[in-house]
Amino acid sequence: MGGSDLGAGGFHPPLAAVRSVVAAALAEDLLPMGDITASLVPAGVEVRAAFIARQSGVLAGTLSVEETFAQLAGSPLGPSAPGAGADAPSVRLEWSCRDGARLEPGCVIGTVSGPLSLILTAERTALNLLSHLSGVASATRRLVDAVEAAAPGCRVRDTRKTTPGLRALEKAAVRAGGGFNHRANLSEAILVKDNHLGGLSITEAVASARAQWPGRHVEVECDRFDQLDEALAAGADMVMLDNMDPGQAAQAVERVRSRSHSTPVEVSGRITVETVAAYARAGVDFISVGAITHSAPVLDIGLDLAG
Amino acid sequence: MGGSDLGAGGFHPPLAAVRSVVAAALAEDLLPMGDITASLVPAGVEVRAAFIARQSGVLAGTLSVEETFAQLAGSPLGPSAPGAGADAPSVRLEWSCRDGARLEPGCVIGTVSGPLSLILTAERTALNLLSHLSGVASATRRLVDAVEAAAPGCRVRDTRKTTPGLRALEKAAVRAGGGFNHRANLSEAILVKDNHLGGLSITEAVASARAQWPGRHVEVECDRFDQLDEALAAGADMVMLDNMDPGQAAQAVERVRSRSHSTPVEVSGRITVETVAAYARAGVDFISVGAITHSAPVLDIGLDLAG
Amino acid sequence: MGGSDLGAGGFHPPLAAVRSVVAAALAEDLLPMGDITASLVPAGVEVRAAFIARQSGVLAGTLSVEETFAQLAGSPLGPSAPGAGADAPSVRLEWSCRDGARLEPGCVIGTVSGPLSLILTAERTALNLLSHLSGVASATRRLVDAVEAAAPGCRVRDTRKTTPGLRALEKAAVRAGGGFNHRANLSEAILVKDNHLGGLSITEAVASARAQWPGRHVEVECDRFDQLDEALAAGADMVMLDNMDPGQAAQAVERVRSRSHSTPVEVSGRITVETVAAYARAGVDFISVGAITHSAPVLDIGLDLAG
Amino acid sequence: MGGSDLGAGGFHPPLAAVRSVVAAALAEDLLPMGDITASLVPAGVEVRAAFIARQSGVLAGTLSVEETFAQLAGSPLGPSAPGAGADAPSVRLEWSCRDGARLEPGCVIGTVSGPLSLILTAERTALNLLSHLSGVASATRRLVDAVEAAAPGCRVRDTRKTTPGLRALEKAAVRAGGGFNHRANLSEAILVKDNHLGGLSITEAVASARAQWPGRHVEVECDRFDQLDEALAAGADMVMLDNMDPGQAAQAVERVRSRSHSTPVEVSGRITVETVAAYARAGVDFISVGAITHSAPVLDIGLDLAG
Amino acid sequence: MGGSDLGAGGFHPPLAAVRSVVAAALAEDLLPMGDITASLVPAGVEVRAAFIARQSGVLAGTLSVEETFAQLAGSPLGPSAPGAGADAPSVRLEWSCRDGARLEPGCVIGTVSGPLSLILTAERTALNLLSHLSGVASATRRLVDAVEAAAPGCRVRDTRKTTPGLRALEKAAVRAGGGFNHRANLSEAILVKDNHLGGLSITEAVASARAQWPGRHVEVECDRFDQLDEALAAGADMVMLDNMDPGQAAQAVERVRSRSHSTPVEVSGRITVETVAAYARAGVDFISVGAITHSAPVLDIGLDLAG
Amino acid sequence: MGGSDLGAGGFHPPLAAVRSVVAAALAEDLLPMGDITASLVPAGVEVRAAFIARQSGVLAGTLSVEETFAQLAGSPLGPSAPGAGADAPSVRLEWSCRDGARLEPGCVIGTVSGPLSLILTAERTALNLLSHLSGVASATRRLVDAVEAAAPGCRVRDTRKTTPGLRALEKAAVRAGGGFNHRANLSEAILVKDNHLGGLSITEAVASARAQWPGRHVEVECDRFDQLDEALAAGADMVMLDNMDPGQAAQAVERVRSRSHSTPVEVSGRITVETVAAYARAGVDFISVGAITHSAPVLDIGLDLAG
Repeated sequence: MGGSDLGAGGFHPPLAAVRSVVAAALAEDLLPMGDITASLVPAGVEVRAAFIARQSGVLAGTLSVEETFAQLAGSPLGPSAPGAGADAPSVRLEWSCRDGARLEPGCVIGTVSGPLSLILTAERTALNLLSHLSGVASATRRLVDAVEAAAPGCRVRDTRKTTPGLRALEKAAVRAGGGFNHRANLSEAILVKDNHLGGLSITEAVASARAQWPGRHVEVECDRFDQLDEALAAGADMVMLDNMDPGQAAQAVERVRSRSHSTPVEVSGRITVETVAAYARAGVDFISVGAITHSAPVLDIGLDLAG
Repeated sequence: MGGSDLGAGGFHPPLAAVRSVVAAALAEDLLPMGDITASLVPAGVEVRAAFIARQSGVLAGTLSVEETFAQLAGSPLGPSAPGAGADAPSVRLEWSCRDGARLEPGCVIGTVSGPLSLILTAERTALNLLSHLSGVASATRRLVDAVEAAAPGCRVRDTRKTTPGLRALEKAAVRAGGGFNHRANLSEAILVKDNHLGGLSITEAVASARAQWPGRHVEVECDRFDQLDEALAAGADMVMLDNMDPGQAAQAVERVRSRSHSTPVEVSGRITVETVAAYARAGVDFISVGAITHSAPVLDIGLDLAG
Repeated sequence: MGGSDLGAGGFHPPLAAVRSVVAAALAEDLLPMGDITASLVPAGVEVRAAFIARQSGVLAGTLSVEETFAQLAGSPLGPSAPGAGADAPSVRLEWSCRDGARLEPGCVIGTVSGPLSLILTAERTALNLLSHLSGVASATRRLVDAVEAAAPGCRVRDTRKTTPGLRALEKAAVRAGGGFNHRANLSEAILVKDNHLGGLSITEAVASARAQWPGRHVEVECDRFDQLDEALAAGADMVMLDNMDPGQAAQAVERVRSRSHSTPVEVSGRITVETVAAYARAGVDFISVGAITHSAPVLDIGLDLAG
Repeated sequence: MGGSDLGAGGFHPPLAAVRSVVAAALAEDLLPMGDITASLVPAGVEVRAAFIARQSGVLAGTLSVEETFAQLAGSPLGPSAPGAGADAPSVRLEWSCRDGARLEPGCVIGTVSGPLSLILTAERTALNLLSHLSGVASATRRLVDAVEAAAPGCRVRDTRKTTPGLRALEKAAVRAGGGFNHRANLSEAILVKDNHLGGLSITEAVASARAQWPGRHVEVECDRFDQLDEALAAGADMVMLDNMDPGQAAQAVERVRSRSHSTPVEVSGRITVETVAAYARAGVDFISVGAITHSAPVLDIGLDLAG
Repeated sequence: MGGSDLGAGGFHPPLAAVRSVVAAALAEDLLPMGDITASLVPAGVEVRAAFIARQSGVLAGTLSVEETFAQLAGSPLGPSAPGAGADAPSVRLEWSCRDGARLEPGCVIGTVSGPLSLILTAERTALNLLSHLSGVASATRRLVDAVEAAAPGCRVRDTRKTTPGLRALEKAAVRAGGGFNHRANLSEAILVKDNHLGGLSITEAVASARAQWPGRHVEVECDRFDQLDEALAAGADMVMLDNMDPGQAAQAVERVRSRSHSTPVEVSGRITVETVAAYARAGVDFISVGAITHSAPVLDIGLDLAG
Repeated sequence: MGGSDLGAGGFHPPLAAVRSVVAAALAEDLLPMGDITASLVPAGVEVRAAFIARQSGVLAGTLSVEETFAQLAGSPLGPSAPGAGADAPSVRLEWSCRDGARLEPGCVIGTVSGPLSLILTAERTALNLLSHLSGVASATRRLVDAVEAAAPGCRVRDTRKTTPGLRALEKAAVRAGGGFNHRANLSEAILVKDNHLGGLSITEAVASARAQWPGRHVEVECDRFDQLDEALAAGADMVMLDNMDPGQAAQAVERVRSRSHSTPVEVSGRITVETVAAYARAGVDFISVGAITHSAPVLDIGLDLAG
């Protein structure tokens, strides 16, 4: 199992996060009686099955699949039991491709061999994770491809609009899809948004951030050009254009560049695969899109028994 | 707080499930330093904010929002602390509508009043849950509306293709959207699918199910008409038509009705809001759709500070 | 290790359930200082010990014993440590029989070999689980044997009167004893009991169940014959006779058969191994008995050091 | 709620233990859909119900019942919700007697008033805990009554043969029944048993215990009189007579008294309510009985809706 | 209770972190039998006790004390129980000062009033947390005071050398002591250290960081001046001088300033309260010290019963 | 891995405790994105690194280091993946010495070999645990060495003043340092302290302890000589001298010896390595010191890449 906590070019989430998600998923699918349909299958039947892409997209979540089988297969004490040769699960997973790979319909992602009943029990949990995370990676890649064609230096980022409980896994899937991760959580960096202004001004917020949290990245979300001016004057590390159209974004970029050459500009707010190229061409550095995590449809992947 | 574990007509998930999902969501958003941006807001600022629908759809997840604020507001010992009048959070949530309600853009879902910093900290977790679950409810309702117009007795059901960790919440959201819940998990009922046939025949599976799990519901997924015949002869409680088009489904229903008048027929497999009415008119009793849980985009809901 | 989540003919509980029960049991027995008596035993002593039945009964819980030793023996990284040949635990478990087997006094259930100190530390947790679960299996089997002699088609079922935290393990033990599982929990199926009638009638309950939870099994508990009539008229899937004597039960069965040939009849309420045959002969389909889980004495099993 | 962690004369288990047991019990009974039968009950129905003893015995577990209702009733934020007057659960528990009280059939233990659906959902979890723990207390009390009549100074103790996961609750129930707690776990005190002698002698064990664990209580289990002599010579703090009949026990007590006047003597091994008085009269100080925790039948307690 | 997740000027850790630390601490101190000494205290005794500083220092950890009492006092359902007036714990906490306050010997930090037995049970857990976290705050403040006197703009920071499981609480205590938080964990920011150079050069590391993790802060630890040059040329956001003496640090600062005016310089490595002023005067921007979290002695705080 | 739960002469904590501490430590260091700096290291780089003592002291915590690597290296299913030869982590740990060993600066404690990125990710968690626990062992050993030189029969003990969440690990480290463990928690033994006397007298406390908790160890803390007399007259098993100077302690010991030859005497209260020998020479049996757990500075240990 890809033990490194960031193997495959940083596309895997930490194993600890995968472990707890898989444990929760198996618990909600199996407790208390286990897989009563699989219990009908004769004990000795061994099969080989393949994970097959049924759509084009980008793969993510293979570590979660490994963990699903590992948790079902159980502890390593087993083979010493009598008849272990027959009883002990000898599940084998072989990947033809790993997270980040582009998939075409019919593409074999990997194969698993072992007891049929165990594979049937694992199937839905493994596919739920694999197809959801590949869906996130694929939605990301669609945006990234559009952006790269339009403005190579511009980058697509995720947001904190992730599915509750799955943030670590979805952020890894975004990376697998060619995207980049914005701040992981509220603890990591400062992002002053419109609702914060109910309590203090942009100038006050940036000054207070510098005083209390030196060394932290400070970004300010701006709806209007005067807010941009205020954020730049206050010394924000980055500005985020909120809900501007591409034309406004281009103007905003120009205004920022004229005042602070090196301050990166991010744009956010209901950007789609249709509109993303226009934003990229507006000259922004980052485009952050909540939909790649909160509204990505699954990538259709199946598990087919071999011959 | 809606204490009953199935209040509001059965639209709420068990509180235990909500508690653990919210705790996980807050932990991934706040640890270890908390909300460092909200820490910049002066302590005494109290506000009132409203959850506003920005799209048409169906509401779900209000219990999760309550739990989010409750977990952040902390233990009830507080008011005895000195200055409790000023310090102690007095968060108030008032709902204008609850799970199952139809929303139009601009509709006020509810309001929250309390310390600005606490509301800012809760905002994203609350909205992530509310917009995801309302997205599930809304996707369900779109199908249900189409089905009810076409064939009133036909029902839309969910599947086990839920987001890992969120099954209880998503299944409640399906109910809020007018859908019904298929089996909760592998432990509850028997559903013989194509991959099981790698180990035993339909006839064997049903016989074995009756012997080992008497009293459990036995459903058999069928790709072909001869499988339907075998399932009915074996005495399945329900048959599921897999990946048939509406015409095939109508034929299959007729075939089932001619053999076993009372056996319900379910259809499944890539059914969309465009095709669902045709399936309903084919005479099936249940239409189960994975996409309402695994691929529902969020319903856009915002939190606006009151004037 | 019996990796399948329902190996051995469905007699094993899900591994996830076993894992958490064993972890809790070891924590309550070992924290914080560990087994201070076993710490007195010289490190190098290796032994072989046998699990021996001291009473007649039926075996259950072998997977829990495996998990106990596995959790104590620790992670597989160990053998690379220096002196691993001596230090690393090499616990071996060999089963002579598995869950569901009938035991006689003196019967060797299995043997474990490895470090004496580790085996001493595991002993009580392993035996507590094995003797409790075998006690459940044995109590079940006593009823099943009586029923099978009296009325072969009649089946013994468990209830939700299980030990808190052990439901999955006890329900598996019931299966090992030849019994069958009633609904796993409140989420799975509808059972209208006397206290529900404080809120609505049987007719209303069944109608509401059909409307809200189509496809779910609906059973109605009846104290009186008029309730039976109402339940059948309402279309219940099964009726449960509550606290009737065998004579009343026979009358009730006759009444049900005369109205609805195929509706199964269950009986429940303080049924014992002395009275169960009479109920079986009354013609009921299912006899559910809380005592097999809530009041089963342990089966006496010991761990004897070899030679 | 009995906030002290050892209120009522030490009969309550720590709240932390109760919390996790109740949470596990509710999770296994309610996930994922909640109580689907209670969902059929109209929302506004409020009732009053009484916990009624149906057998003679001793009460234990009231704190667990309180916690069950508290966990279902949810967070205290609720009453601020609109319509809180109608929606918010206002569960009230009133105890007529608490842990340790003797019960007669028909005795009202306490009453609960609140929403019918919530009370129905809580019923089985509350009763499972209350009847199991009262069963433990009652089994203990039967032995204690017999011992107190025969030899007032002699005390009944529990063992580590408790139900996995319930040790803290069962040990409190033993105290409620008039019994006393032996060591809580392997970490707390030293008890040299027969299987330890596979690794070292009694003399070595006691010497090693004194050297490594000074200040810890050292008890030695003895099957034979020469072992008693060895244990006393080694300076054990207490001796345990294992599987001796009352006559042998009396001889053993005499032998111990002649060598070490103040060393307490305990006896253990398949002692029943029929034989316990004879052991008490043999002069032992403690009688420890595994059956009071591992084989106590439940005490029959019901929940009756008030007229 | 300080409900905001970053009240008191950001000195409190997230409530979720406090909850789990307190739950673990109480479990390890109370399971399974509870506080058996406190059980000896008569039930009705109510007292008032004061937390008193016995040393000079800075306060931290008051939220943990509140949570300790809250978890012991239990659920809010209680007061409805009969005799609640007497039974229900009415613990009141009143703080005279909160996290960040400077304490002198004899200073009253706060008072608690309620049942003596509950207060005794809470005492050690509350004091362990309060004295450890105040110890961290005090050690931090000693360095901060020395630095502020020497070079006002220089800031003291913590490291990842925190006590396992307590990072969130210790980082909050550092802030209470006037220090600032370095990165929270390995996930948040990039810090290239000497051991990383076993795999790639500084230049490669910075380039790769920019490519894979744009927008993340990149700091490079340097032992030698040529590494400083390489780090600056590569465009690091900050450099960390590792294990240099104050003279070397001053030279290093000069070298950095001559090449990149605005790049902040941090110094780390066995800096003590004796040497910290010299480092501050060397012109560095940040001084990070592991000892404030990993080796801070507790601040002596006692709990004295009033009159 | 040292599978026995008390191997190495009882110096290891239970594996269950180590598991949960390591899991918490890794979660707080790695979630949600993993080690983003280590992600920059090329995947194929394998290294060998050594744990090196940089100070004199005593080693403790090797089991925690093993568990850290084991949790990062993941499940054993991996090697079956394609390219497993390259991908699968093959971490090897070899210890040159284990818990309890005396270390000198430069001493190699052990070596680890495997993927550089995995070792970098594990480094801080492993060192935090190893250096903290070795710090506890070393602080203990300094006192023990002083005591053994002064009065060989006198023993150093810990207290309940441990770091929240780490009690099991710190108590094992105390044993590794040559110290002994006082009671583990409030549940295990009775210790009547000054604050208890707000509720009852010493005489009442001891009598009540004997009645309610027979067989439990009863120790009484005494500030004054008349309290000593009262405690001895009441029959306490041990007395603890609180905050006496060595001269007073010697007088107290004499007073106790004159009244009860065999009652052990313990002394506690701000004893340091400078004063401990004087206390030992005063004739006490036990010296308990909170500082060895609550204020022990870490032992400086580094991880150096080989060659």
